[in-house]
This record gives sequence, C-alpha cells and structure tokens, in this order.
Amino acid sequence: MSAVTTPAATAQVTSDVEPAVRDIARRSKVASRALATASRGTKDAALHAIADALVAATDEIVAANAEDTARERAAGMDDGLLDRLALTPARVEAIAAALRAVAALPDPVGDVVRGQTLPNGLRLRQLRVPMGVVGMIYEARPNVTVDAAGLALKSGNAVILRGGSAAIRSNEVIVHVLRDALAAQGLPEDLVQTIDPYGRPGGVALMHARGLVDVLIPRGGASLIRTVVAESTVPVIETGVGNVHVYVDASADLDKAVAIVMNAKTQRVGVCNAAETLLVHADVADAFLDKALAALSGAGVVLHGDERARAAAPDGVVVTPATDEDWAKEYLALELAVRVVDSLDEAIDHIRTWTSGHTEAILTNDLGASERFVAEVDAAAVMVNASTRFTDGGELGLGAEIGISTQKLHARGPMGLAELTTTKWVVQGDGHVRP
Amino acid sequence: MSAVTTPAATAQVTSDVEPAVRDIARRSKVASRALATASRGTKDAALHAIADALVAATDEIVAANAEDTARERAAGMDDGLLDRLALTPARVEAIAAALRAVAALPDPVGDVVRGQTLPNGLRLRQLRVPMGVVGMIYEARPNVTVDAAGLALKSGNAVILRGGSAAIRSNEVIVHVLRDALAAQGLPEDLVQTIDPYGRPGGVALMHARGLVDVLIPRGGASLIRTVVAESTVPVIETGVGNVHVYVDASADLDKAVAIVMNAKTQRVGVCNAAETLLVHADVADAFLDKALAALSGAGVVLHGDERARAAAPDGVVVTPATDEDWAKEYLALELAVRVVDSLDEAIDHIRTWTSGHTEAILTNDLGASERFVAEVDAAAVMVNASTRFTDGGELGLGAEIGISTQKLHARGPMGLAELTTTKWVVQGDGHVRP
Repeated sequence: MSAVTTPAATAQVTSDVEPAVRDIARRSKVASRALATASRGTKDAALHAIADALVAATDEIVAANAEDTARERAAGMDDGLLDRLALTPARVEAIAAALRAVAALPDPVGDVVRGQTLPNGLRLRQLRVPMGVVGMIYEARPNVTVDAAGLALKSGNAVILRGGSAAIRSNEVIVHVLRDALAAQGLPEDLVQTIDPYGRPGGVALMHARGLVDVLIPRGGASLIRTVVAESTVPVIETGVGNVHVYVDASADLDKAVAIVMNAKTQRVGVCNAAETLLVHADVADAFLDKALAALSGAGVVLHGDERARAAAPDGVVVTPATDEDWAKEYLALELAVRVVDSLDEAIDHIRTWTSGHTEAILTNDLGASERFVAEVDAAAVMVNASTRFTDGGELGLGAEIGISTQKLHARGPMGLAELTTTKWVVQGDGHVRP
Repeated sequence: MSAVTTPAATAQVTSDVEPAVRDIARRSKVASRALATASRGTKDAALHAIADALVAATDEIVAANAEDTARERAAGMDDGLLDRLALTPARVEAIAAALRAVAALPDPVGDVVRGQTLPNGLRLRQLRVPMGVVGMIYEARPNVTVDAAGLALKSGNAVILRGGSAAIRSNEVIVHVLRDALAAQGLPEDLVQTIDPYGRPGGVALMHARGLVDVLIPRGGASLIRTVVAESTVPVIETGVGNVHVYVDASADLDKAVAIVMNAKTQRVGVCNAAETLLVHADVADAFLDKALAALSGAGVVLHGDERARAAAPDGVVVTPATDEDWAKEYLALELAVRVVDSLDEAIDHIRTWTSGHTEAILTNDLGASERFVAEVDAAAVMVNASTRFTDGGELGLGAEIGISTQKLHARGPMGLAELTTTKWVVQGDGHVRP
C-alpha cells in the first residue's frame, strides 16, 4: 500500500506545512489533467473499482473506525456524534452503493452550455469542463471522504481532503483504499490526497493555495464555515447553515399544513433543511396552532412562541416566550420558534430579517400570496405547499450532492456534479481577425 | 440634486468608515428589492432615462472631467492614461448609446435554467434571479461607472461603486446624474451608490461587507485584483490578467497565421485579450517567422525570442534574447515573446507553465492537433484559427460585458448580464412531505 502523505511527524513543524501542502496541491493539479480528458467509461470503471475495494477492505475500515470511536467515546463525544462517526459493515456497503449510484449518473463534462454560429462565421461552444482541483474541509462523518472523492472524480476533478480529527484513522484507511484502487485502474493515485497529517496548519495552508486549488468547499458547523470564508484566498462555496421558516397563510389547508410542519421539523433532526421557525397568519392561528402545537409537542418538540402563539397553544402544551435569539437560532434539534403574524408582508419581513437564505416555505391556497412569496423571498429554495426537507440533491433530481450552497456565487442550493464543473469557450474560425 | 453620500470630510476618520460603508450596503440591499421584482419594461425605461440624463448633463460631466485630467496631467499621468480618463461630448454620447444597447438586450431575470416534474408530483423550476448587491472596484476610466451601473440595473441589482481617485470628480457628477434619473423614474436612487468619498479604507470596508454585498468585481491592474482577492470576505470574481499565447502548428496556413498574429498583437494594445507570446512549430519556424517577425517589427512591435526564434528572424529585425520574465509577462504593450517548439506537446507544456487561463489560440489545419489543444489547454477561451481578440462579451454574442473572469467559479471568460444573476429553486407541491 502506498504512503498516503508525508508522515505526520514532519507536520509538527509548522513552517514545513505550507510547502508540503502546496506540493500536494501541485501533484493534484498534475493528476487532474489525466482525468480532465478521461471518458465517462474510464471514470465510471474507477468508481466501481473503488466501491469493490471498499467492500473488500470492510474489516480493515471497521477496525480503524473502532479506534476512532473508542478514542472519541473516552474523550466524551456524545452518542449522536458517535453514531455519525461509526462505520459498520452495512454502512461500508451503503457507502459503496452510493459510489455505484454516482457512476450511474450522466457525466456533466463536455455538455454544451451555450453554442451558436456568429454572423461572421465564428463557431462558438461553451463547454462544461472539470474545475481541476477541489478542496474539501469537513467534520466527523467518514462517509463524506468517499462521497466527496466519488463526486469529484466523476466530474473529472482531483480532490484534496481535510477531514475531522475524530475520524482520522478511518479516513487514513479509506484514503489508502481509494488511492490503491485508482492506481490499479491505471489512474494517478494523487487524484485523491489527504492533508489530515498536517492538522489545522494544513487546513490553513490549503485555504491559501490560490492558483493550485480551484475551489474549497467547507462542510460542517457554522464556526468551521466562518473560519474558511474568512481565511481562504481560494474561492469558497459556503454551505449549510439553514435558519428555515415555514409560513402558514390564512388560506392554507390546515390538515396538510400540520403534516408539512411536522415533516419539516421532525422527519430528521439536525439537518440544515429542517424547519426552525413557524410563522402563522393571525386569521388561522387559533385553529392551526391548536392542532399543530399539540402534534409537535407530542413528538417531543420544545416550543418557543410570541405572546399570541403562546395564547393559541392548547391546554397542557408548554410554549416558553421566544426572544430574538430564538428567531436567529438554527436549533438543529427538536425545538421550534413560533410567531403569529398579521399579514403576508409581516411574514416576509420576518423572514428577510432572520433568513440564512437556505429554504423558506409558504403553505397557502392563494395564488397571489404564493407568487409574492416566491418572488420576494430571497433564498436558495422556496417551497410552496411542500416540506422544506425537499431541499436536497437527491430529492431535487440531481442524483447526489456534495453540499448545499447558501451563497449566490457559482452554485445556490444543492450542489451535484454540474456544480463541480466550470466552462470553457471554444471558438473555431478560419483565419478570423477582429476588424 | 441629492447628496451622493456623506461628505468626504467625515471619511477622514477611518474608524467611521466601516459603519458608514456598511450602512451604504444596507441601503443598497433594501433598494435592490424594488428592482428584483421589476419588469423588464421598468428597467429598460430607467436605462433610457439615464442615457438621456447623461447626454443632457454633458457640459457638467465634461467640466468635471476637465478638472480630473488637469489635476492628473499636472501630477504626471502619461498620455495613454490621460486619454482613457478624458471625456468629450462624443464620448458621453457613446456612453449613453451603450446604455441604450444594454436596454435592448434580453432580460436574464426569470429565465428557467432547469425544470421538471418529479415522479412524486413536485414541480421544480430553477429560475435566474438578481444577485442583489454588486460591488465594483475599478480604476481610471469613468465610462466603467456607467457601464457597470447599467449592467447591474438591467440584471436587477443594486451597485456600489468604488472608482479610481484619478476620476473622482467625473464619477461624482456621473453618479449624481444616475441617481437623479432613477429617482425621476420612481426608483430608489440608492440602487446606485458610490463609496469614493471614503477612499481606500472605504474599499477595504466594502471587501469586508459579507452578507450585505453579494459579489465584488475588481477591474484594473494586477495589483488591484491581488489586493481585492486577498482582502475580501465578500465573494470575488477575479478578472482580467491575460498572458495570452498563440501557437502556430506545423500544418497552419501561414498567411492566415501572420494575419491572426498581427491582429492578436497589434489591433489594440493594452487589452487583456492581446497576444503576449508566440509559439511556433520548428517545422515552419523559418518560413513563418521570416514573414511574421518582419510584419510585427514593421508595426513597431519589440521582439524577444529564444535562440531558434532569433536565428529565424529576417535580416534587420532585432530580436533580443527572451528570459523567463518574458514568458511570464503580460506586456500590455507593443512587445512580444517568441519561442520555437518541437511539438504540440512542447507548446502545451509551455502554455501550462505560463498561462493565466485567459485565452489561448492554436493555428492549424490538423484536426487531431486542434482537438488535443482544445481538450488539454485549461483556459477561459480556446481559439482555433481565430484571433485571441475575440474573447470579448460583445464579440461572443453576450451583448455587453462587465469584465472577463479568469477564475473558474461562477463565471469564466466574458461576463454579461446572466453572469450578474444567481438562481433560486422554486418547488411547488400539494401537501408534499418527505417519506
């Protein structure tokens, strides 16, 4: 098995980290050229080979992961995070299956985005081409190591990984398996590299590798993302923070609205497309909140409300007073802020004040209200009569996702394979000069 | 006439600059909402009104510009830069005409980028929507003030301008005219704001206004762009540096090749899509360089060459020895580096080493060579048998351009109206929840 990177001992000397990481990035750039012109067949075969190799290495991966979980449990990691960190044979199989699903997706490289023949006879095509080198900085879950590598490779890119320290042994073994599988397919193993041995200074060096790394995608908590955005000179795609609102309009179908709010808050907890604030039109506040708050409370959701929402709560349902902190907070937990508003305008104003631009929903049967909400709310995704949980690459038909962008540049919302590409103008003439 | 911003005197206190600029950005954000949902008719009417107002204010604009040119001439600005700074009645008319041309372009806002109905009945549309607030940091030429404002407004955005100090009086008057014309149309004058009174600290504050400013576009010299990239937490689109190569393959039509090289180098000097290095296949070096270097030299082009290029130069044509500095340099002048290569591979290697990723050209009649060059050269635009001068929004059919992106994120190559938009997913259901 080839060495993944320089031994960790070297990385202790911070002054050595920057040149070492830049050297890794340079090797990624060279490796990326081999993949940029590879056929879809070559790339899909590599993904299948990697999937097979991961399954074959299940015992080794699970054993390394057991070291990570044991160490983190001893260090006091909570059960929820430990569960996200843990790999079992079934989870390794699921990771491999996800790679095979990526292989089955269409290849975005070579797609003609725009094209025409100009009056002067110049033939233009704007083609999708790989970015080149994609950097990923992420936290605990080791499945991201494989997901990110798979999506990067399928879209013709090399990837440089910086995973969380909690998963360091798991990621080390997984990266070994990926590199060996690439080499066995005749592809450069440097298409997948890790800078984990270089720790935090390695991450910073990656953020400064402008010109060598084409895009950096941070995935994790708000503080990780803030750090990358502030520190990086490499272009960054900001992902993930979702202070998501559901607005129940006066004309909403209240039974459907209860089902959607329950789904948006409780179907999965701790995800960025889960609802965090419920806004209800005053005309239906009593009727709707009587049912909705009972259902939410019954599902274990802790409720915070303004005065009118508290007054509308059914007997026995506790709703503590909501503060600005509640309107601002992405709970990522079974917790919800509730406010009664007098109009669509007041709902839009509330959202404008507190939105993180991820996903916002209106539940209504009023066409004018739905059109105004769609036009005036500025977010990556706007839902009409649907759960906010649909903001997801798989659910929106992208096949897979490498993250959900909450910025406006380059990609907005779920990012699939096309979002890991850029474009190139190809201009064909016959001796054309500019007059 | 309304005050453009707080008086310059206030801005002398650096500690006041950051909150003042953030306040300007907040006002831009609020103003942008009025335009985000405006019809094309409203926006086009505003552009025509601005064009009319500029022409009506010609005397005032030219007088303010005369102050700028007089001051800069006294300070030693060279004639080339003075010419770019100067405004005449004819140039004001041309600026107004460019605005009317932007009004005539299709509106990208509302375009459906992708759309489908999913098997579960969810109806998806990914729509083009305005970015919101666009920041422009640019140098001398005052026409950029109007061009940038026009393109931003047409694409539904507010714009915050930071022009060069050399054009400060011209820009002040122009911004006044723009704001008054917007107000007369019933639109918020804060759709166009300048932070010129805040000087360099104002520019830095703009670079830090993440969350208020959606994208920052620097236009100017390499050092301006480097500063913005390094300092900004607002997403940046890097523009403009073009170390452009033309490769003359063994199979090229040599007469057409001479015409293209002459056009690429001399048709306009000091622009980013002009050629800076000429690579010639050894098989045709003598025949081609004999003609080409004579023509270039005759047009006043200063030549630097490797040993073989120098040997192939016709009698009387001076070619000084080229160094790595020549291969690296964007001359932006009547100056060209010339190298003889033994193969397409050597040409591609040279380009990979020195390219800035702007525009690269191959002149060839060999299909295989053209396909390899197009696939393997990583640049915003690749030309086959055409002048590099065609990398331009107007020439490529975009109608207008706000700059030429040399990064891979969001936009690559000439940026028109569509590149000033982002997207929004609109998801319509009928009570859909995620299972």
